[in-house]
Amino acid sequence: MKCVLLSGGFDLRKYLASEIKRLEGRISFVDHLDGSDPAEIRMAVGWHPPADAFDHYPNLEVACSIGAGADNILNCPSLREDIRVVRIVEPAQAQMMAGFVIFHAIWHQRHFATYFANQRERVWKRIGQRTMQEVPVGILGYGAIGARVAADLAMLGFPVNVWSRSAKPTPAGITGFHGADGLDAMLAGTEILVNLLPLTAETKGILNGVLFGKLRRGGYLIQVGRGPHLVEQDLLEALDSGQLAGAALDVFHVEPLPPEHPFWVHPKIVLTPHDASDVSLVATGQTILATAEALRAGLPPKDAVDRSRGY
Amino acid sequence: MKCVLLSGGFDLRKYLASEIKRLEGRISFVDHLDGSDPAEIRMAVGWHPPADAFDHYPNLEVACSIGAGADNILNCPSLREDIRVVRIVEPAQAQMMAGFVIFHAIWHQRHFATYFANQRERVWKRIGQRTMQEVPVGILGYGAIGARVAADLAMLGFPVNVWSRSAKPTPAGITGFHGADGLDAMLAGTEILVNLLPLTAETKGILNGVLFGKLRRGGYLIQVGRGPHLVEQDLLEALDSGQLAGAALDVFHVEPLPPEHPFWVHPKIVLTPHDASDVSLVATGQTILATAEALRAGLPPKDAVDRSRGY
Repeated sequence: MKCVLLSGGFDLRKYLASEIKRLEGRISFVDHLDGSDPAEIRMAVGWHPPADAFDHYPNLEVACSIGAGADNILNCPSLREDIRVVRIVEPAQAQMMAGFVIFHAIWHQRHFATYFANQRERVWKRIGQRTMQEVPVGILGYGAIGARVAADLAMLGFPVNVWSRSAKPTPAGITGFHGADGLDAMLAGTEILVNLLPLTAETKGILNGVLFGKLRRGGYLIQVGRGPHLVEQDLLEALDSGQLAGAALDVFHVEPLPPEHPFWVHPKIVLTPHDASDVSLVATGQTILATAEALRAGLPPKDAVDRSRGY
Repeated sequence: MKCVLLSGGFDLRKYLASEIKRLEGRISFVDHLDGSDPAEIRMAVGWHPPADAFDHYPNLEVACSIGAGADNILNCPSLREDIRVVRIVEPAQAQMMAGFVIFHAIWHQRHFATYFANQRERVWKRIGQRTMQEVPVGILGYGAIGARVAADLAMLGFPVNVWSRSAKPTPAGITGFHGADGLDAMLAGTEILVNLLPLTAETKGILNGVLFGKLRRGGYLIQVGRGPHLVEQDLLEALDSGQLAGAALDVFHVEPLPPEHPFWVHPKIVLTPHDASDVSLVATGQTILATAEALRAGLPPKDAVDRSRGY
């Protein structure tokens, strides 16, 4: 089975080197427009493919993302409707994401920004404690990752509300909301908002000033979805007005975040370089192999995106 | 029932004001040497009582600490062998401690010190991720608080080893060690060491250079026990040599930590002002009341310290 690597700018062959070696003899990875017969290619692995990439492969049937989100492929203008798009679903990634979100939730709950500032000033000052039970968390997005994040936060004692587009069952201790009305109800009971939504036309810009205004005053944003979910200027205004006490940002409109961007030096923002939770190379390799085997067997690939809803 | 407030320097009456009011009519709180007949006093609430405090109360039977540790009372020279000492045991306190420890464990696992430094320098640099499974945690002390901290860390995915003086059963996913031999075995498999021991003659100075040398190189100390557990100079040396990558310190030999102390400005130390986990005033009031009722009924108080072992 031949598989083409499709990426603009990012060196997929280098990134996947260990898995390309591991899959040798079962999958042959070719580079985009390297002289191979494009009609032979039925499968791709991609990360932000060039705009016209898919036009070159008339018989391509499936494209794998190397992340949990597939928006980087779904947004490619040349992607045909009949190409299936697969993303990486890995329990270990959900666990890493849960740890990352928990860190920031406790950072806010326990006022660690104040402790850190006080240490710099050599100020010994105790801070009145709020229990986890007093700090409700709302999670936007309740897929495999959202479910793990919700379960772990609830276990630690945080009240947890989750919101998804359509109704989903939730276990005891986690309150589910869905649809537009459900979103407002969920936000009204939330202090820490965690964004884990997939990026679609509907969710782009969802993190805006109107939404922030529906949270508890002094709320906190943990943005671990995709950069375009956030209206950046609205975040700055919500931080300045005190509607939000702070924000942890891992994803941005432009990555790497340009050095002149105001987020770098904002005293209420903690930022990380799109590093909240990698999928492992091993899981990526396993998904690529499983997808190739499904293709050979004429079966639908596992973990394919629903093209109609966009995730 | 009369109860005397015994503290050197700390204003117990102010601290306990809400509970003193709540218990009005059931317990009458008197101040030390305020002219009340000392022979009538059978009960005390204390926090670092003056050295001769207990000499004034020949009929005192029980003294309540206002914390989870009772060392502040047990170390009082005038405390007689026959006085029972009670401490506060509160599930909510264990939960708060678990959150505090988890924050610091993830801080170390995920290299947040590096992310924070990079943000200050506007450096966008991803960091290779280690899963929780790769970062074993060892906990010194396996009482009510240690058990909750261990359970929560294990649930998040950290391998968890616990050590206690005598053997104790542990649930699946938590490995128990005990005694002197067990301590070395536990340390050898530990990267993050959490100190939750009670302060006794045996545990004073246990966090020293020899112990640090038995941990994985690049280990991390989370010190939430009592200040005198730690040999401060040894910690500085272990940080300088790289044997320890960092430390989170909440307790100190002298509190408040003096402004000239080197811990304040050490780049590998995160410090907090003995604030990891308060007992709530409500739980303190409930314990005082339960202790008074046991005394009236001629029953032994709940949550009394074993004087022979010191906790």
